[in-house]
Amino acid sequence: MAVYTDITDDELAAFLSDYDLGQAVAFKGIAEGVENSNFLLETESGRFILTVYERRAKPEDLPYFLDLLTWLADRGYPSAKPIADRAGATLKTIRGKPAALVEFLPGLSARRPTVAHCREAGEGLAWLHLAGEGYPARRANDLGQPHWAPLFAKHRKAADGLKPGLSATIDKDLAELALSWPRGLPTGVIHADYFPDNVFFKPDGKFAAAIDFYFACDDAFAYDIAVTLNAWCFEADGSFNITAARALVAGYERRRPLSPTERDAIPILARGAAMRFFLTRLADWGATPAGALVKPKDPLEYERKLAVHREGLSLFGTGA
Amino acid sequence: MAVYTDITDDELAAFLSDYDLGQAVAFKGIAEGVENSNFLLETESGRFILTVYERRAKPEDLPYFLDLLTWLADRGYPSAKPIADRAGATLKTIRGKPAALVEFLPGLSARRPTVAHCREAGEGLAWLHLAGEGYPARRANDLGQPHWAPLFAKHRKAADGLKPGLSATIDKDLAELALSWPRGLPTGVIHADYFPDNVFFKPDGKFAAAIDFYFACDDAFAYDIAVTLNAWCFEADGSFNITAARALVAGYERRRPLSPTERDAIPILARGAAMRFFLTRLADWGATPAGALVKPKDPLEYERKLAVHREGLSLFGTGA
Repeated sequence: MAVYTDITDDELAAFLSDYDLGQAVAFKGIAEGVENSNFLLETESGRFILTVYERRAKPEDLPYFLDLLTWLADRGYPSAKPIADRAGATLKTIRGKPAALVEFLPGLSARRPTVAHCREAGEGLAWLHLAGEGYPARRANDLGQPHWAPLFAKHRKAADGLKPGLSATIDKDLAELALSWPRGLPTGVIHADYFPDNVFFKPDGKFAAAIDFYFACDDAFAYDIAVTLNAWCFEADGSFNITAARALVAGYERRRPLSPTERDAIPILARGAAMRFFLTRLADWGATPAGALVKPKDPLEYERKLAVHREGLSLFGTGA
Repeated sequence: MAVYTDITDDELAAFLSDYDLGQAVAFKGIAEGVENSNFLLETESGRFILTVYERRAKPEDLPYFLDLLTWLADRGYPSAKPIADRAGATLKTIRGKPAALVEFLPGLSARRPTVAHCREAGEGLAWLHLAGEGYPARRANDLGQPHWAPLFAKHRKAADGLKPGLSATIDKDLAELALSWPRGLPTGVIHADYFPDNVFFKPDGKFAAAIDFYFACDDAFAYDIAVTLNAWCFEADGSFNITAARALVAGYERRRPLSPTERDAIPILARGAAMRFFLTRLADWGATPAGALVKPKDPLEYERKLAVHREGLSLFGTGA
């Protein structure tokens, strides 16, 4: 939940004067997204989301994200299409900050995903992987496996502060991940943050849309599945729901069947994906001042997921 | 900005099953209101605001507020009409908390009100005072003048902590206000919190609607004008904009002319209104824990307004 930037009437009117959307008729900050400020904007011609980019998204990366959203929308994928101004620009400035207007997508995110939601989410993810094929721009995953050890080196103390002895365990994990990290898997555009917050469903429970592409990058498709399994298939008590996980993969395979190599890689990818979110939460935990308006997410949630994956997942066992 | 309560899919579906509004198609927490949680809810039949009552609003007062909103809407006043469920109830429960569904009102609040906005806001306020005539329920102003001295007694230390010697100044103000507080002014339903956040305008700048009636009560109409003058007519540098204030009163008088007694009372009412907001901000300031997600509003903003009013306003001078 976050609205970091307050937009005045004059600033909004000046911003809209570059578009052919009419005047604003409603404008509300929405409690969505932690990284950027988001506003629901209704004009005389429709409804939009205005995003003001605040923190983690690097300005030089924004064209990659916005052009990707345009690419996907042009191919019929239900992500929010950026709205170009009269000069054709989608990346704009408001109050001195980068900003973009995208179409408003109806849909509800699943606060407590069911197995049926997981199946639909999996299908939506495979659809995204296929729709991204041929997107010409490139963006390396700056939170991928090679970046974890250097990131952890900066936050070892915070780890031990959360749980005594944790830094030694993480060191061991990082070494094992470096040794066994899969290479040569099919790659392409991945979402990389396909959490329940970022997926919308229709009232009948069918996949409706995906939003918040600000971690999108080039990486293994199966790694995106692994991030998604971690985000969707753990119960509140910390246990892994194998039924939900299998449904998610089965939904994925409705659109894009996995190769045996991809299937085999999922357990180690899921362990790595848990490491990635543990590490960024750990970094945010230390960096958030005591009086901040945004509560950082608990790194230990992902440390517990990491512990589950340390034991090894058996997603596709025959039950033998 | 606040969303204190998270609503799950099942809770929302169960809530909506009492209404004939179809299923939810979009649901977003909105960064509006400090006291309650507000959600923009779109169903198959329209758009609504779901309010979950969290703190200051006492449950026993909620029928007064909701019935007032229904009363006003039935008389054509543009406030959000509560939606009754199939059994005719507007006050409901979600997640164990009181909650209500009201219609969504389009409109933009003025983040930096102009003189023209003040005129329109004044007219909207007079309209409200007239539309409330005959409303049968009663609610005393529990933040009115008789309550200030007891409230301040609990927060004297906090005042001196903000500004050394402030408590003695406030004591003197409170004594003067008690002696000179006007009696016998025309009374009725007042909004009592008619701040720029709570007033919407159309794209052409005309008054569109008023929201957030959770301080509404019976008190002098001119006191409501005084609260509004304080909220709308101070510049960022702390100076009082007499042009904006006169426009606000002139707008008001388009619908409801003031009696000479009401005009004469406005300076002391404005001083009292500044005291009321100073005191509740002071109380919130002390009560907000250091790590809270909501930043309390600065009591000294209203202490400065109080200081301006201590000198006496001359709103209606002839310039002689």
